[in-house]
Amino acid sequence: MNQLELVRELAEQATSKIVMLVADGLGGLPLAAGGKTELETAATPNLDRLAARGTSGSSIPVLPGITPGSGPGHLGLFGYDPLEFKIGRGALEATGIGFELGPDDVAARGNFCTLDAAGLIADRRAGRIASEESFQVVERLQAVKIPGVETFVKPVKEHRFVVVFRGQGLDGRVADTDPQAVGVAPLDPHAVVPAAARTAEVAQEFVRQARQILAAEPKANGMVLRGFAAKPQLPGYAELYGLRAAAIAVYPMYKGLARLAGMTLVGKAQSLDEQIDELARHWEEFDFFFLHFKYTDSTGEDGNFAEKVRRIEELDRALPRIEALRPDVLIVTGDHSTPSRLQSHSWHPVPTLLVADTCRPDGLAGFSERDCLRGGFGIFPAKHLMLLAMAHAGRFGKFGA
Amino acid sequence: MNQLELVRELAEQATSKIVMLVADGLGGLPLAAGGKTELETAATPNLDRLAARGTSGSSIPVLPGITPGSGPGHLGLFGYDPLEFKIGRGALEATGIGFELGPDDVAARGNFCTLDAAGLIADRRAGRIASEESFQVVERLQAVKIPGVETFVKPVKEHRFVVVFRGQGLDGRVADTDPQAVGVAPLDPHAVVPAAARTAEVAQEFVRQARQILAAEPKANGMVLRGFAAKPQLPGYAELYGLRAAAIAVYPMYKGLARLAGMTLVGKAQSLDEQIDELARHWEEFDFFFLHFKYTDSTGEDGNFAEKVRRIEELDRALPRIEALRPDVLIVTGDHSTPSRLQSHSWHPVPTLLVADTCRPDGLAGFSERDCLRGGFGIFPAKHLMLLAMAHAGRFGKFGA
Repeated sequence: MNQLELVRELAEQATSKIVMLVADGLGGLPLAAGGKTELETAATPNLDRLAARGTSGSSIPVLPGITPGSGPGHLGLFGYDPLEFKIGRGALEATGIGFELGPDDVAARGNFCTLDAAGLIADRRAGRIASEESFQVVERLQAVKIPGVETFVKPVKEHRFVVVFRGQGLDGRVADTDPQAVGVAPLDPHAVVPAAARTAEVAQEFVRQARQILAAEPKANGMVLRGFAAKPQLPGYAELYGLRAAAIAVYPMYKGLARLAGMTLVGKAQSLDEQIDELARHWEEFDFFFLHFKYTDSTGEDGNFAEKVRRIEELDRALPRIEALRPDVLIVTGDHSTPSRLQSHSWHPVPTLLVADTCRPDGLAGFSERDCLRGGFGIFPAKHLMLLAMAHAGRFGKFGA
Repeated sequence: MNQLELVRELAEQATSKIVMLVADGLGGLPLAAGGKTELETAATPNLDRLAARGTSGSSIPVLPGITPGSGPGHLGLFGYDPLEFKIGRGALEATGIGFELGPDDVAARGNFCTLDAAGLIADRRAGRIASEESFQVVERLQAVKIPGVETFVKPVKEHRFVVVFRGQGLDGRVADTDPQAVGVAPLDPHAVVPAAARTAEVAQEFVRQARQILAAEPKANGMVLRGFAAKPQLPGYAELYGLRAAAIAVYPMYKGLARLAGMTLVGKAQSLDEQIDELARHWEEFDFFFLHFKYTDSTGEDGNFAEKVRRIEELDRALPRIEALRPDVLIVTGDHSTPSRLQSHSWHPVPTLLVADTCRPDGLAGFSERDCLRGGFGIFPAKHLMLLAMAHAGRFGKFGA
């Protein structure tokens, strides 16, 4: 019996409310030996007070030593094993720009390139084409018509775009067409398995028509396609946990990830304060709220230690407004660590805190990487966090008699 | 997706160096209630200093409560699941005496025994025959000739020897011939599965010829064969991790285990100092170095607490010479615990330390069983250690986007 089967068997209805506040990239590192991490540096009176009431731990997003992208990081927090459920690159890119993938869709990432007179790649980034210019090129591609298939072409940034094919029986197992070199022609899309033969034909036809349409473009007269992928089949929050789940996020990527798990997107908040406004506004309609805070990650990616500290303090100050709603379970965690020192995601465990009336005290007086090592949840796989959320919310029955 | 598939997907090339120093049987127990373990008793200023810089934890070789032999203990440290990959007894015995098994080999452990006039076992250890005497008996068995198969017979100790059959299509699934009793005849080798039928015939022919050759021996006129096994198929370090891996060990068993993982044996060191000489000499040629230190285990097996303490202190004094090479990742661990009090391997977790610039501090000031319980890696499966080594060495890409 795996975790999802167990969840399905034990989930029970209740009136309790769960708030999961995800501070993206929360965990950090000291800048120098003997120093403090961003979280240890920040003044976090509210987190410290909540840590004294709740139970803490260090969550491992995938496995020790494994640095996750946003996709696997959030899948773990939502209770899916990130080694079992994968979100293909094309599906993630489509998700990231807010395109709502359906069950009959196959998405791919596209890069415009410049082809020479012989059809060989002369520039793999289409002369570093500006977004404004490439958006117009994308617009021209709306003219592509493929019988029996609906085609969506969406801009991303600069030379990057997304193409989605929608039709019966499509299959994501089509090979990349990027030869990863200049002076050679883009590859033809071809099926990796027989079931994807039709999808490969559709992609070939798309490329053929696109080449005609773009023949006179000075920069973006060719393209390569990568990361073909269908929407991952995740059992949703309602079916799994019996939870009406809402996502309150600012950025499309996280909205998309939440939608893959069957959450409902609410509001158009642009700040944490506005996100909490939405939380209050929709409090009665939902049982579970995923709040995503991006800036602990982006400041880490920028290598801006001081600004990450400031963003953690901003998050801390917002907590009393969430507490005022009296959630039965309040979780503060991250999808991975993003130490400013590394300017990237990392494999280090993520400080995690759960506050509920049924928490067993673990004797901590603060919330930080070092504190969490001594927390009552120990060092645990992130995919177990939803089990703890459900338990502390009184939403699980007993396993076995 | 399992751990090895994940490793293959994420491993990237880098110039970093990893040193894994395995103090065999490192973990211990106090001799009496309220006392200290061997490691806690030893003066280890270098380990303590490194623990303050690095991250520590307690590694579980197989599963809690499971006492491993050297084979499973090292498989875990090398990143293979010891419950999935098994080294058959015959293959391990051959490895332990330094016999290099090939892909067409099946090895078995042999015991000489004394047969009476009716062919029944009168003495299961051939009258406790001395090694010098049995080595001569083994020498006489070199005369066995089996068509289509190359046969190797190698002495081990006293009544024990190893036989290896080399030929196309051999299969280790042949049953033991040891009836585990006196007054009965040795069993005939027989195949457990049809695919091993030819191997069973080869073994029968070996026993038939050996009986003729040894008919006049006063003690070793018969034999039983046990633990038939082919070489385990482990994906190697180069293929898995992209690491050029070297093993610097004194004893044949550990050299053999390293060779099974695709490591290159370097040098003929007989002491830890000489092992570090070899490490320095081959520093540029390899990315990963496995150094094996036997005496923390052998002193534990002897029940010699004071001598195990002394050996730990010897190891500690050697560390600055390793540090002087500036490895990017330095690991000190053991393959299992060998408490002097138990005079045997045990199931207790193994103190483990990893030192790298990207370590998150865990607030420890010393290296011991008790300290490691509070370390940043927590209590973790030994098979995860290589994931942590690769991550801290900057040799893993990001998992998912």
